[in-house]
Amino acid sequence: MTAPTTTAGRTDAYPTRGETAAAILDRPDPVLWAGPDAPGPASREELLAYERDGVLTVDALLTADEVAAVGGELERLGRDEALRRDDRTILEKHSGAVRSVFEVHRLSEVVARLVADERLAGRARQILGSAVYVHQSRINFKPGLGGGGFSWHSDFETWHAEDGMPRPRALSVSVALTENLTVNGPLMVMPGSHRRFVSCVGETPPEHFRESLRDQEIGVPDEGSLTRLAVDHGIVPCTGPAGSATWFDSNTMHGSSDNITPFPRSNLFVVFASTDDPPGEPYAAPAPRPSYIAATDLTPV
Amino acid sequence: MTAPTTTAGRTDAYPTRGETAAAILDRPDPVLWAGPDAPGPASREELLAYERDGVLTVDALLTADEVAAVGGELERLGRDEALRRDDRTILEKHSGAVRSVFEVHRLSEVVARLVADERLAGRARQILGSAVYVHQSRINFKPGLGGGGFSWHSDFETWHAEDGMPRPRALSVSVALTENLTVNGPLMVMPGSHRRFVSCVGETPPEHFRESLRDQEIGVPDEGSLTRLAVDHGIVPCTGPAGSATWFDSNTMHGSSDNITPFPRSNLFVVFASTDDPPGEPYAAPAPRPSYIAATDLTPV
Repeated sequence: MTAPTTTAGRTDAYPTRGETAAAILDRPDPVLWAGPDAPGPASREELLAYERDGVLTVDALLTADEVAAVGGELERLGRDEALRRDDRTILEKHSGAVRSVFEVHRLSEVVARLVADERLAGRARQILGSAVYVHQSRINFKPGLGGGGFSWHSDFETWHAEDGMPRPRALSVSVALTENLTVNGPLMVMPGSHRRFVSCVGETPPEHFRESLRDQEIGVPDEGSLTRLAVDHGIVPCTGPAGSATWFDSNTMHGSSDNITPFPRSNLFVVFASTDDPPGEPYAAPAPRPSYIAATDLTPV
Repeated sequence: MTAPTTTAGRTDAYPTRGETAAAILDRPDPVLWAGPDAPGPASREELLAYERDGVLTVDALLTADEVAAVGGELERLGRDEALRRDDRTILEKHSGAVRSVFEVHRLSEVVARLVADERLAGRARQILGSAVYVHQSRINFKPGLGGGGFSWHSDFETWHAEDGMPRPRALSVSVALTENLTVNGPLMVMPGSHRRFVSCVGETPPEHFRESLRDQEIGVPDEGSLTRLAVDHGIVPCTGPAGSATWFDSNTMHGSSDNITPFPRSNLFVVFASTDDPPGEPYAAPAPRPSYIAATDLTPV
């Protein structure tokens, strides 16, 4: 497939939401931007596993005290009535419970310090091979007894289409603040799917983020591509105790089921992206998303 | 708590959906009605595990040929346009896909033979300590890419309230026709919960079964009782390859999440009940459910 030219004459290896049909494309870009011997907190074995799978779980990234401190911040933010009416707070579609709070590294000093810690930012620099900025941070509450799931998606597809991120030189870390069990709607990933880009069908409507953060319908792979990827790569749940962390490539296909158990599944999400590949205009959206979802401040952490 | 007297002067150790508040009651009845040394296909160890947990998974109950034969029946019934309009077929609330087909042991000779097999009916007789009849049979399709889950419930609560089953001398077996993975919405149980009866709040509306088989709201434990049971007993997923089977007591608290994977999770469910404790009038419903959901033919299998 020939890469089409899009806005501002940019050549685009990741066309999506355009006039092309759904397709599964190969990713031309690397996963480890400085190779498996880059210095940092992750071992060579961990880096090679991450390169192969697009996902890596680290047990006990945080101490119990740190989990308690961040958990306290989570409770404080969840109780904040003014914040509840803020755009940065996303409510559950049906119950109205708090689903996510964005830009938590600006709302909480505790979170800000953690994000800048070598264990988080250091691993991100090691994998992305450059200085990094925080593209997005959020806490996901996923309350028990009916917290909703997330449809299958590649984060990079959205960040490319809607935030103008040129290539998948970004990653997420999900830090467990409560135990992530197989039964309470854990993150599920397709290991190896990060090597393939699913070009999605459908045009991005204005202010798409207001709906997509609760229940995404655009930028979601078609059922044929999804089935193909699931059969080729399989699906594994990412589980671990409070304080564990799962790193995953920006293009790893992931999703989660609902949580019908009474056990809440709360996580701190941080997205690091390379300062060497700054975002430009959206590739397939009428306007960029707000800065609390897609940072415009590229100051390295 | 004193057991109240209900319709027809019957003393009832399992009051529910009446004027009482939600409560967690102890179960006065046994789990193994002929003890752990009853003769039959299950070993003494298996029977003791079943008595303790209220659940037992048996790998390779069916051969691959048998799985294929039942799977063929499932496909045939799912394609049957006349059956699709039949009351015995339950459709998914949102997608309209086939969710369940009831009374499959009367719709399929293959299923009827399997139900009467010593591996199924024999284990039921061994556990219930008497001859058994089929109270209900069904195939659950749970298609991939969005098949809905089931809320937490005790089957016995419904069979008691709506079908007049006097005591929990009944069990279910769920035979896997596709692989039951942790990620595709498997049966989840609270092991040990079968020893406690959660008395539910709310009156049964007429024809409740039409809604409850798709999305149950009455006969569902209150959140406090559910949380208490989950904390006390934990939650485990029941997984296994096609051909494996999970047995569970009629009062074991269970549920399942939605299935966002492309992998369907199809199961054959059979409920066996003791002919020594035949059902009477419903304990808490205006009328009995149709015979394709709650058998009136108590002929032993």
